[in-house]
Parts: sequence; C-alpha cells; structure tokens
Amino acid sequence: MAEAAPDGLPPADGLGPALDEPIFGRAAIVGVGLIGSSLARVIRRKRLAREIALFDASPEVRARARELGLGDVVPDSLAEAVAGAGFVILCTPVGAMATVAAKMAPHLAPGAIVSDVGSVKASVTTELAAVLPPHVALAPAHPVAGTEQSGPDAGFATLFRNRWTILTPPDGADPAAVDRTRRFWEGAGARVELMTPEHHDLVLAITSHVPHLIAYNIVGTASDLEDQARAEVIKFSAGGFRDFTRIAASDPVMWRDIFLANKDAVLEMLGRFTEDLTALQRMIRRGDGEGLEALFTRTRAIRRGIIDLGQETAAPDFGRRSGEEA
Amino acid sequence: MAEAAPDGLPPADGLGPALDEPIFGRAAIVGVGLIGSSLARVIRRKRLAREIALFDASPEVRARARELGLGDVVPDSLAEAVAGAGFVILCTPVGAMATVAAKMAPHLAPGAIVSDVGSVKASVTTELAAVLPPHVALAPAHPVAGTEQSGPDAGFATLFRNRWTILTPPDGADPAAVDRTRRFWEGAGARVELMTPEHHDLVLAITSHVPHLIAYNIVGTASDLEDQARAEVIKFSAGGFRDFTRIAASDPVMWRDIFLANKDAVLEMLGRFTEDLTALQRMIRRGDGEGLEALFTRTRAIRRGIIDLGQETAAPDFGRRSGEEA
Repeated sequence: MAEAAPDGLPPADGLGPALDEPIFGRAAIVGVGLIGSSLARVIRRKRLAREIALFDASPEVRARARELGLGDVVPDSLAEAVAGAGFVILCTPVGAMATVAAKMAPHLAPGAIVSDVGSVKASVTTELAAVLPPHVALAPAHPVAGTEQSGPDAGFATLFRNRWTILTPPDGADPAAVDRTRRFWEGAGARVELMTPEHHDLVLAITSHVPHLIAYNIVGTASDLEDQARAEVIKFSAGGFRDFTRIAASDPVMWRDIFLANKDAVLEMLGRFTEDLTALQRMIRRGDGEGLEALFTRTRAIRRGIIDLGQETAAPDFGRRSGEEA
Repeated sequence: MAEAAPDGLPPADGLGPALDEPIFGRAAIVGVGLIGSSLARVIRRKRLAREIALFDASPEVRARARELGLGDVVPDSLAEAVAGAGFVILCTPVGAMATVAAKMAPHLAPGAIVSDVGSVKASVTTELAAVLPPHVALAPAHPVAGTEQSGPDAGFATLFRNRWTILTPPDGADPAAVDRTRRFWEGAGARVELMTPEHHDLVLAITSHVPHLIAYNIVGTASDLEDQARAEVIKFSAGGFRDFTRIAASDPVMWRDIFLANKDAVLEMLGRFTEDLTALQRMIRRGDGEGLEALFTRTRAIRRGIIDLGQETAAPDFGRRSGEEA
C-alpha cells in the first residue's frame, strides 16, 4: 500500500494528500474483491474514513484480507463489521446484494449511509430499499472502473482515479447522504455524475454490458471449434481476437448477475446490435464496398472522442509493446 | 530507426544482431503503410537485404518515406522500384494487389520472388498467379501483427517480433523461394508457420476478421444513438466499450477489402457467432443463470492459453495504468 514518501510528501500516485478530517468514522466494506479491496486501499491512502472494517462471506478471502492488512478490523461476522459504521458499501455481485442487506439490516447504526458499487442500479435499488430499515439512508453508486482480474490481491488504490462514478439516488433520497457519498468518491479520485437508476442501466447496457456479452459470445464460439482449430485460434489471436478474451476473462458470477438484473436494457441494446449486424452481413454478401468503408470510417471518430476525453490511452495497441510478452 | 549502440553492440530491442550476409540484394516494398514501413525498418535494422527500394501510389507518402529515410531509394515509378529487385513485397490493401502486380509484371527481374502481406490469401493468391510472369516465384505471406494505426510514421522495427507470420505457398510453389521467404521473416523476428491459403482464410476469419466486424458493428450501433446518449457512451466507455473502439479504429480501406476478399469464410464464422448469440439472448430472457455462468467460466480458459503461449501480456487492462491517460 502506498504510504507517505520518506520526505513526508504524499506518494506521486496522482491521488493528492490524505484528508485532514476523514469523511466518515467507520467505513464497512462488504465483499473484498477487486473493487472492495481497491476501496479499502484508497480509503486508507486518502484517509477517507477513520477506521476500515472488512467482511467477506468467504473465510479464505477474510484471511487474505488480514494478511494483506487491507482493513483495521476483519471480523468473522457481518454484524460485527457493520456495527457502528457510518458508511457501509456493498461490493458483492449484484445478485447477492439484497440477501446481504437483509442480513445486516438489524445491525446497522441509525443514520448510517448504505451504498454499493453494483453495475446495475434500477432493480438492485428497489430490492435494497425494500429490506433496509427506515433509520438508514440509501445512496447507490457505480464506479465505472475495473480490470479483468478478481479477488483481494487484484485491487489497487488508483483504480478509480479519473474514472467516472455514477450516483443514482432513488426518489426521496436524503440529499445530505448523497452529498457525502459524492465527497467520498471525489476523495477516491473519481469524477462524479448523477443519473436516475433507469437511465444508468440503459447507458451501461451499451457501454459495458452488451460489449461484455458479445466478447463472451465470440470467445465461446471459438472455444466450440474442434481441437485443432481452437489451438490455432489461440496461436494466431494477435489479429484482434485476444482483445476480446481480456473482457471475456472477467468474473463469471459478477457478470451472470449483471445480465439477469439488467435484462430489459441488455435485450433492447442487443436487439439494435443484431439488427445492425444483419445489415453489415448483407453488405458483405452483396459486395457493397462503399457501405463497408463508410461505416468503418465513421467508427474511427468515436475512438478519437474517447481519447480526447481522457478515458483512454492514445498509444497504439493500448501501449502493449509488440512481442514483449514472450 | 534503431542503429548500433555506441558500444558497438546491437540495440537491446530483442531482434538480435544484423546478418553478416543479407538474404536479398534489392528488396522492393510496394505500399508504405504500417506494415510496409515496419518492414523497411526491420530490413535495415537486421540487414535482411543489401538495398531497400520503396514505392507508394501516393506522392505524399513517398515524400514522407524520403523524409523518414525509410529506404535507400524511393523512385516515383513502380517500374523503377521493382527493377532488379530479388524480393518484391506487396503491402497494399488486398483489393489493390492484383492491379499493382499486373502493372509491375513487365518490370520484374527473372528469378524474383514476389510476396505480399495480405490478410486474405486464397482469392488474392489466385489473382496474383494469373497476372505474374512465369519467370518469377510467388510466395505469399501474412504477418499476424499490427496496431490500429496507419501510415509510414506508424511503423516500427519490432512489430513482427515473436508474432506469427503464416506462409501460404500455392500448389506447385518453388520450395527454394518459400524457404528464402521463411528465412526473411525469421530474420524479422517472426515465428513462421505454413498453411494452405484456404485453411489460413478460415482461421483468420475467426481470430481476426469476425472480431473486427463485430467491433465495427457495436461501435456503429453506438454512433447511431441520439446525440446525448452517444456523448454518454464516449464518457463512460471505460466499462468495456473502449476496447472495441481500438479495433474499430483500424484502416477502413484495408478492412473493406478483407471482408470482400474473404466473404465466404467470414459469412460462415459470422453465422456461427450469430447462432451462439441467439442462444445467449434466450438464456438472458429466460433467466438461465447457470447457463450464463457456465459459458463465462469456459471463456476464461481461452485467455489463459493465449497468455501462456506468449501472444499476450498478463498485465491487467493490457497494462494500461488506470486513469493515467487524463
């Protein structure tokens, strides 16, 4: 974990100095995977809370969290972890959130803010609101950041730096709780945007959920080929395929839950994708070179926009240096 | 361009020392884009030929090739560039190759080896064979390497290092010409594999052509969204979408030609992809979590295979450091 440099200055990680006054007393993180462990690291690094409590349903993950020194306390019960916490962040797969929230509900401190990091917001927010007691404030969030890796070892303090975190306060949310949650994420280095849960789910369907689905799908198509062909696909993957395998290596349970929880928006966007693919297929069958070139020219501009907004590197091949891996 | 280090040792670029005895006298490169300019750089760096002649149909590209010092001569005519060359490599988009080959045919030296770097082999090889004179040897090749960038400035000498180059000698090809072409590519740092043109086109359809097609397609779907939604897609692209935009930023003319020239194999693989996507869509609609998780677990193994074979970095997010771009 990055601590102060020997000269007393903060580390040169772009996160700036730690806060003089933490935003929260105890922050409890439930679910210590890539996101949960990154949050623990940045909370300590930026002093966003006075104390960090961690809980994970897996005893192995709790043991690893202790070894890594990710939190101040890593109790063996969820109840103990959330007791006295002013800020509780659910970092489990979205399919587990309502169950976990129901379990911890009786142990939540009055006035606590309950947040989450789920990639789907509408259905999950409704489920959480139904099981949480009236004396806590719900302030859901989604940090649009991650890697294809999973688990407590995969996290790092700068994961959220310059990435967007979307807050999706439900109707009647406590403005003060939303504001503290915003300050928390800004403290973690993120840029913050507010949206309705429904709009969030539609935007993420096209920027994230459908891309993951088609990456999983093409890697699946390839893995169904007979043995020799599959070996060749792996061998000659540098032609484009290997980019898809990165996305398709993401956590299976997390993504299963996302597709089930955001079914409607995903099916809507997938419908548009399939329609467009059929048109493209017809262009190829008919030998419509002009149509193909026009589409391929148009798509270049989108990447330019992403690089200009600072959400991507302009280095060719993502900055992978050719052949250096071998 | 990497030259010898001050201490007389070769540069530490992993390409090894230059050859004592070049493989060819004059090598002529026709088409000075990403691949052609990378070839020029590695031919000089490794001394694979005694002299490098370059030609490009665009006067601007020829002027830039001269400014960059990419070749020994950059004549204004194709005839002059290929005159006396023992090795001629076509590096144009595949749709232009037959026309260019017909133009240069009368000027080729007896015994010259004509090769290319096209991403499609069966149709192109037939077309080239039809226009080349009997006194030259055809030895087609496809280096499976590249970036999303184009033009003479985008090339670099190590582009082919540890990447595969596939040789696809047509029936009755001269074994000596194929062997010299193999030594040439090994000299450029590539690993070499032989295949029939038809098998090559099927393997590349799934490892490269269909992945590019669906990347172009999803970026196209996104760019058709109304203005506000499109702006949001760009803004929140870090969720997965931005990986696709890299592929969809590749050269439009090159890719138009690939889809037209490899129509049958692309449509065959696209058919399998679409079939699988329909099945996946049904799983989501029916809420089949087990089926989704099983697929997502299976696809992880494929990436492991690619990393183990040295065709990809194991660094998360391709080694992009989170948020560093901004």
